Amino acid sequence: MSKARAESFSDGVIAVAITLLILDVHVPEASQTSSLASDLGRQWPNYAAYVVSFLTIGIIWINHHAMLRRIVGVDHAILVLNLLLLMSIVVLPFTTALMAEYLTADHGQRLAALIYGASLLVMALLFVATQRLILVGRTNLVKAELTDSQRRYILRRNAIGVIPYTAATLAALITPYLTLGITAAVALFFALPATTADHGDNETSS
Amino acid sequence: MSKARAESFSDGVIAVAITLLILDVHVPEASQTSSLASDLGRQWPNYAAYVVSFLTIGIIWINHHAMLRRIVGVDHAILVLNLLLLMSIVVLPFTTALMAEYLTADHGQRLAALIYGASLLVMALLFVATQRLILVGRTNLVKAELTDSQRRYILRRNAIGVIPYTAATLAALITPYLTLGITAAVALFFALPATTADHGDNETSS
Amino acid sequence: MSKARAESFSDGVIAVAITLLILDVHVPEASQTSSLASDLGRQWPNYAAYVVSFLTIGIIWINHHAMLRRIVGVDHAILVLNLLLLMSIVVLPFTTALMAEYLTADHGQRLAALIYGASLLVMALLFVATQRLILVGRTNLVKAELTDSQRRYILRRNAIGVIPYTAATLAALITPYLTLGITAAVALFFALPATTADHGDNETSS
Amino acid sequence: MSKARAESFSDGVIAVAITLLILDVHVPEASQTSSLASDLGRQWPNYAAYVVSFLTIGIIWINHHAMLRRIVGVDHAILVLNLLLLMSIVVLPFTTALMAEYLTADHGQRLAALIYGASLLVMALLFVATQRLILVGRTNLVKAELTDSQRRYILRRNAIGVIPYTAATLAALITPYLTLGITAAVALFFALPATTADHGDNETSS
Repeated sequence: MSKARAESFSDGVIAVAITLLILDVHVPEASQTSSLASDLGRQWPNYAAYVVSFLTIGIIWINHHAMLRRIVGVDHAILVLNLLLLMSIVVLPFTTALMAEYLTADHGQRLAALIYGASLLVMALLFVATQRLILVGRTNLVKAELTDSQRRYILRRNAIGVIPYTAATLAALITPYLTLGITAAVALFFALPATTADHGDNETSS
Repeated sequence: MSKARAESFSDGVIAVAITLLILDVHVPEASQTSSLASDLGRQWPNYAAYVVSFLTIGIIWINHHAMLRRIVGVDHAILVLNLLLLMSIVVLPFTTALMAEYLTADHGQRLAALIYGASLLVMALLFVATQRLILVGRTNLVKAELTDSQRRYILRRNAIGVIPYTAATLAALITPYLTLGITAAVALFFALPATTADHGDNETSS
Repeated sequence: MSKARAESFSDGVIAVAITLLILDVHVPEASQTSSLASDLGRQWPNYAAYVVSFLTIGIIWINHHAMLRRIVGVDHAILVLNLLLLMSIVVLPFTTALMAEYLTADHGQRLAALIYGASLLVMALLFVATQRLILVGRTNLVKAELTDSQRRYILRRNAIGVIPYTAATLAALITPYLTLGITAAVALFFALPATTADHGDNETSS
Repeated sequence: MSKARAESFSDGVIAVAITLLILDVHVPEASQTSSLASDLGRQWPNYAAYVVSFLTIGIIWINHHAMLRRIVGVDHAILVLNLLLLMSIVVLPFTTALMAEYLTADHGQRLAALIYGASLLVMALLFVATQRLILVGRTNLVKAELTDSQRRYILRRNAIGVIPYTAATLAALITPYLTLGITAAVALFFALPATTADHGDNETSS
């Protein structure tokens, strides 16, 4: 089965999901008596969450791109795992809005942050699972130029990528701001140029 | 007429429709006095419906992919039938939200589930009709490597796929939970690896 | 300039616009005292408008497909006219919702239908203008196999396609139902297989 | 790394962002006592903002298209800068709705227009930065046929494109209408055919 439509469908779903993030940044009602500046200021969790989730989904897309670039075709198992991965990405506009809404509320902050961290963790785990299936279970579909050492390097780096999202999830039990801080740090770290181009392979994060 | 843009347009429409499903999972208002946990808990029909519809649309996409992979071009009749199929897919975010909203309401549950089941059934029937048109009515557009026996096998399997959606629709007359259960079972069944790769053809369900 | 990205961008915009149509089919609130059946029944203008606009945008896409298939490249003027055409297509979810909301209201029905008809007319006119620019003004970009007689045939058929939308717009002054009826008839007419395949060219409508 | 998926993902994100603009043009409620004509008339800032932002995003897409057409591949730095550029484009439906909502309000007009102008300025600056990185920092990825003089010409024209958006942002301090006027003029100017085709290169604006 050709991988071209799997790429194009994944690109479409990820592109829509990343763009829907903006729908949860609301325009304050003009009829309110408070000043626009203060209305907009109160929404800072929405801006922060928008930036973090946008960068995170963007980096996942870059990695998804790298993952499919290494194979010559897809089979049913890859398509289904990829579908589950996409399902976890599409959930992010919801969990992002949930954390933004409750970050400065007087109840539910920790639960909202826990769910946000967990949604990123599930996405990272599904990415690792898909990567693993491809590199370990479907070696016949992997391009020949990939050495065993490169393969192990990619899998190890992906597995390491799960750690910060586990930390971000657990951090919600202390304070939701720590969850936001860790996920922001992960997004910035993987966006830095220095983290790539080693091993001649362009993957960036899990 | 080239099939490339028909694939790319279908991918786009299906990708948007599958992603819009998340718009009906709402963030509870932070100003409410109830706990976030109970607010989120009450929304379980939305999560269940999101998962079932996401997987169902995803599997339809995989099958759509397989259907178009078998032909070398498209004509006006295929494009119009494909458009009707896409129209039935785009309706799903609405019928999914309808069933989720009414599953635990004190009226309208059966009607909402009936409409949900019927919307899946219509989609399945339009898929069968498009498949039939291609494999029976447009043999000149079908790739030569497809044998008559493979052709009959695909059509038979597609036709069988209509049965569970008929059952799910009728089940709404008993209880909406049965509709949800049957559609969930169908989605899980077709996501299983064992259901494919027979006959050397990658189609998965209707 | 390559036409591939112009096609892919147009496909994307049209795919999103056609899918957004469903956002204006609302789920009735479960807390209402009226029955779900009557609540859904009252929304029939939304279903009718959804079907008509979905088919209309779908047919415009098929024709857009055919229009770009005839050329080997695009220039700035084609891209800008195409952008205006896309802008008129993206407006349709708004004018569709407007007509659906006011069709059975006690005021504003004619104005809403007039705007709906006019939005389809503007789209048809922009399609004719883009087609004209390509076939008359950019003959160097048109594929050589297209004869002068085919060219004139396409332009004539496109120009004729403007007539029913003019009629639908004017019909709003009599009754909005006539506008809906004419636009529905146009969509059905161009979806019929008999209207194509003459002159060996696959275009369907303007 | 192939540039095909970077193009396809960017096309997807820009196509969704440009289409979401219509979501902020609302249908007036049919139950209101005021006439539909006056309700629609009051929304003129929404229509104006829709047209200006649609054309602006459309022109950015045309330029994005031209920018990527000049290179043979992408690296991590280009992908990350492109992601930031996309993030600034996806913000536009929000800032557009913000300006439209406050243009005729009795407070917050200048701040809303300032934010709208600034969001366009940030997008223009990120476009210049991405263009610069490609033409100055990644000469190995640039197609050989591009001469040094063409390269300098493109960069100079891009840099000049930042000026009107700076003016539009500062103009908000005087009156929001001036911001809208300047951004409208920029969109119309770059849509004119005369501004392109010089230097045999199809870029249109920054």
